Amino acid sequence: MNQKKKCAVDVTRKEDFPLWYQEVIKLGDLAEHSGVRGCMVIKPRGYAIWERIQQTMDKAFKKRGVQNAYFPLFIPLEYLEREAAHVDGFAKECAVVTHTRLTQDENGKLVPDGKLEEPLIVRPTSETIIGESFAKWVQSYRDLPLRINQWCNIVRWEMRPRLFLRTAEILWQEGHTAHATAEEAQEEALEGQKVYAHIIENYLAIPLIKGEKSEGERFPGAENTYTIEAMMQDGKALQMATSHYMGQNFAKACNIKFLNKDGKEEYAYTTSWGSTTRLIGAMIMTHADDNGVVIPPRIAAKHVALIPILTNPDLNEKVLDYCNTIKEQLEQITYYDNEISVDILDDDKRAGEKSWDAIKKGYPIRIEVGARDIESGKMPLSVRTKEKSDKEFLSLEEIVSKLPEILEDIHETLFKKACLHREENTLTVKSMDDFSEIVKSEDFPSKFLKVSYGGDKLLEEKIQKDYGVTIRCIPQTQPKDHESCLFKGARKPKLAIFAKSY
Amino acid sequence: MNQKKKCAVDVTRKEDFPLWYQEVIKLGDLAEHSGVRGCMVIKPRGYAIWERIQQTMDKAFKKRGVQNAYFPLFIPLEYLEREAAHVDGFAKECAVVTHTRLTQDENGKLVPDGKLEEPLIVRPTSETIIGESFAKWVQSYRDLPLRINQWCNIVRWEMRPRLFLRTAEILWQEGHTAHATAEEAQEEALEGQKVYAHIIENYLAIPLIKGEKSEGERFPGAENTYTIEAMMQDGKALQMATSHYMGQNFAKACNIKFLNKDGKEEYAYTTSWGSTTRLIGAMIMTHADDNGVVIPPRIAAKHVALIPILTNPDLNEKVLDYCNTIKEQLEQITYYDNEISVDILDDDKRAGEKSWDAIKKGYPIRIEVGARDIESGKMPLSVRTKEKSDKEFLSLEEIVSKLPEILEDIHETLFKKACLHREENTLTVKSMDDFSEIVKSEDFPSKFLKVSYGGDKLLEEKIQKDYGVTIRCIPQTQPKDHESCLFKGARKPKLAIFAKSY
Repeated sequence: MNQKKKCAVDVTRKEDFPLWYQEVIKLGDLAEHSGVRGCMVIKPRGYAIWERIQQTMDKAFKKRGVQNAYFPLFIPLEYLEREAAHVDGFAKECAVVTHTRLTQDENGKLVPDGKLEEPLIVRPTSETIIGESFAKWVQSYRDLPLRINQWCNIVRWEMRPRLFLRTAEILWQEGHTAHATAEEAQEEALEGQKVYAHIIENYLAIPLIKGEKSEGERFPGAENTYTIEAMMQDGKALQMATSHYMGQNFAKACNIKFLNKDGKEEYAYTTSWGSTTRLIGAMIMTHADDNGVVIPPRIAAKHVALIPILTNPDLNEKVLDYCNTIKEQLEQITYYDNEISVDILDDDKRAGEKSWDAIKKGYPIRIEVGARDIESGKMPLSVRTKEKSDKEFLSLEEIVSKLPEILEDIHETLFKKACLHREENTLTVKSMDDFSEIVKSEDFPSKFLKVSYGGDKLLEEKIQKDYGVTIRCIPQTQPKDHESCLFKGARKPKLAIFAKSY
Repeated sequence: MNQKKKCAVDVTRKEDFPLWYQEVIKLGDLAEHSGVRGCMVIKPRGYAIWERIQQTMDKAFKKRGVQNAYFPLFIPLEYLEREAAHVDGFAKECAVVTHTRLTQDENGKLVPDGKLEEPLIVRPTSETIIGESFAKWVQSYRDLPLRINQWCNIVRWEMRPRLFLRTAEILWQEGHTAHATAEEAQEEALEGQKVYAHIIENYLAIPLIKGEKSEGERFPGAENTYTIEAMMQDGKALQMATSHYMGQNFAKACNIKFLNKDGKEEYAYTTSWGSTTRLIGAMIMTHADDNGVVIPPRIAAKHVALIPILTNPDLNEKVLDYCNTIKEQLEQITYYDNEISVDILDDDKRAGEKSWDAIKKGYPIRIEVGARDIESGKMPLSVRTKEKSDKEFLSLEEIVSKLPEILEDIHETLFKKACLHREENTLTVKSMDDFSEIVKSEDFPSKFLKVSYGGDKLLEEKIQKDYGVTIRCIPQTQPKDHESCLFKGARKPKLAIFAKSY
């Protein structure tokens, strides 16, 4: 513990947010950098959160008629080239496989051998390779809509990795659908966005803005990209998940055609939508504090840390037995489709240290169990969102009956706090002087700026260059009346959110 | 349908087993070859089976204290070289990443660029990269045992791919554990084998032989490989899952050391164990017949095909409504941790065609629903393991109450049939003349040969060269008395299973 600052993380959010983020992940035992540049190791505690996100999302997808499948890791160069914007977007960050074996050179050193005639790309996304299958699977309007998802790894080369936020290899899901009409495909992309929004708000407890991406920020090859943006504690925006309406671009590139009801051949309309382990990064940067990780209870893999107080060797067995009784009883409770999960911290550290461990690792609830507490029938229960010293004394029966309610309270507290933070740091800007002053100030946290904007891609680039902020999204909820564009763009103005971003 | 042969697959098992296998997968809509040489596309019906296998296995692993995590796709060449046998085993089939971007050459053609200083290997297995993490995570005996698993893709280059059996990219799980003693690690490898055996027998309904691999068939770098071998319908052996005791080989290669209870530094003892989508191939080659796929009910994602008979347009709505009623009622039933899943085949094919579709796709149960059946209150129910014409007439109440029992019967039938097939095609061989005659005959199916063997790796190679069979395993269950080695090997003889293999 950082004694001087009375908090568990050596550096506070305000002092150095990026360093704080790294330390929180380390103390929380969630992930670490690997010996392979740009790639991370997701440790069991981090992976368990991903499994909960997967479980929740997968159920929601299947409810919408989406089927899981699996497509190759490798994409022939030629496939990628079929959609011009697409290849431009990904060529600069591809892992390229050129050989199929290793052989010893004259010095006994292993070197690549078995050169491929055409190199293969490790998928940065799978529109083209899945498009190849869709072209075979779709023949008639009866085969539509086709809704497919895969959970897999992708690679986008990255030399300045940040755990969960920016890594060369990324775990994600990518949904791909094909439809008979443009309207249905547009609707599908928006429905995908709704699924993400539901999970981000209701499980990760992160307030969000649903919107569209501006021209300059669209997915390479998409006609429209729908995004979900959230504010992190440093005031920067994080793109949480995106959903793309492709029009007929990929259908033409991949030759996805169908016979419509009138017997005429048409290109299908496609969508894709994806989300990654970045959601774990967002969870950390939204909820963690200067004492470490805070895991929202509905997505937590572990809900309760039981801290046995083992001070009298004669009573230790009794205390541990009682911990097991508590664990058994609590693990009967179902909470958001899973059983409550309890860890007994029975290592040989002192109780105070165990409490700090549980805090740093983000357990929503801690319960101390000492011989005295067993005798008195009341145990001190603490929640991660309150002060460390704040304890409520409850009997086992009370804990069992109140646990779901306590967890729900924690969820609400986290969500409200994050909403408040965003409100306090969102400004409506109506003059260039204000805009310039705000984006150039070094205030912590930085701000979301609501600005009337009617420019094109070139103007976006100029603003980014001059001010270091980008349009994070054009919110779906727009005001009735629009002011003229702050930057004197020639198009019909819309309310846009400008911010610094991850 | 193949009218002449009165079966759904164009070619029978006996006529051409490999071609039959391909056709069954195609008719069953399970998987297909992709445009990327060696890589397959797992279609939704195939992937759903993999999801059930994953779910069942993952639960069993977690019950044993195994935690899931995730490690990088790429392995630096240098890591692979740390264990000599290991790199020898995998160097000939590695996908090698040499570049990190694409750029246009003078003719506008995209070519690899951004050459890596040291090439990276796409993981063929993860002992070395996980070992790197274990070396950091393990400090003291208190950190042991460490039990980690990952679900991921691996690549072992393969130019003659066979769907599910042999592909360049493979989906699998790999468990890796570290222990303080050799005994504990040995025990762990055997426990891993037990988990696989349980699922293979009790879910996939495949009879198996638990055994050890001979010296020549061990995992590169292992001290001992435990295997599960099963007989396919062509009499060949398929290795279903393996579990390796590594001794201290990888601990030394990766520097996994710990302070023991006496404060002395020691190398840990490690294991690894893996299983792949090959299990789906095994399921097909064990249970499918000349009419297509047969999916064992406990692992099936879809249990019942409802076939509405829509012959009278006035009554069609009534029939479809009743199908929905049946579906709703049946989907309330829980069977092996999942709800019963029912598909209504409501496309515009004739009822007979729909029945054949359901047969080819391997639904354990088919129920026909016509207006007349609704009136009479009894519907014809057929099971995949009986003749197509064999129908039992049951009321909805009877179906609901009997369904789990009917499914269990199908499981038992499949398992018993496969046991009988193996018994009938396993021979004990006591003379070289018999051995030679049997392995050189072209009988279908080929045989498992029980032979007393006491040779070394060289003798194994010679037998493979001369007779085309290999030691599939040395069964754990050994006879009390051993005959002398049939091949006059100098070691202490053991009973071994020789067979042709996949």
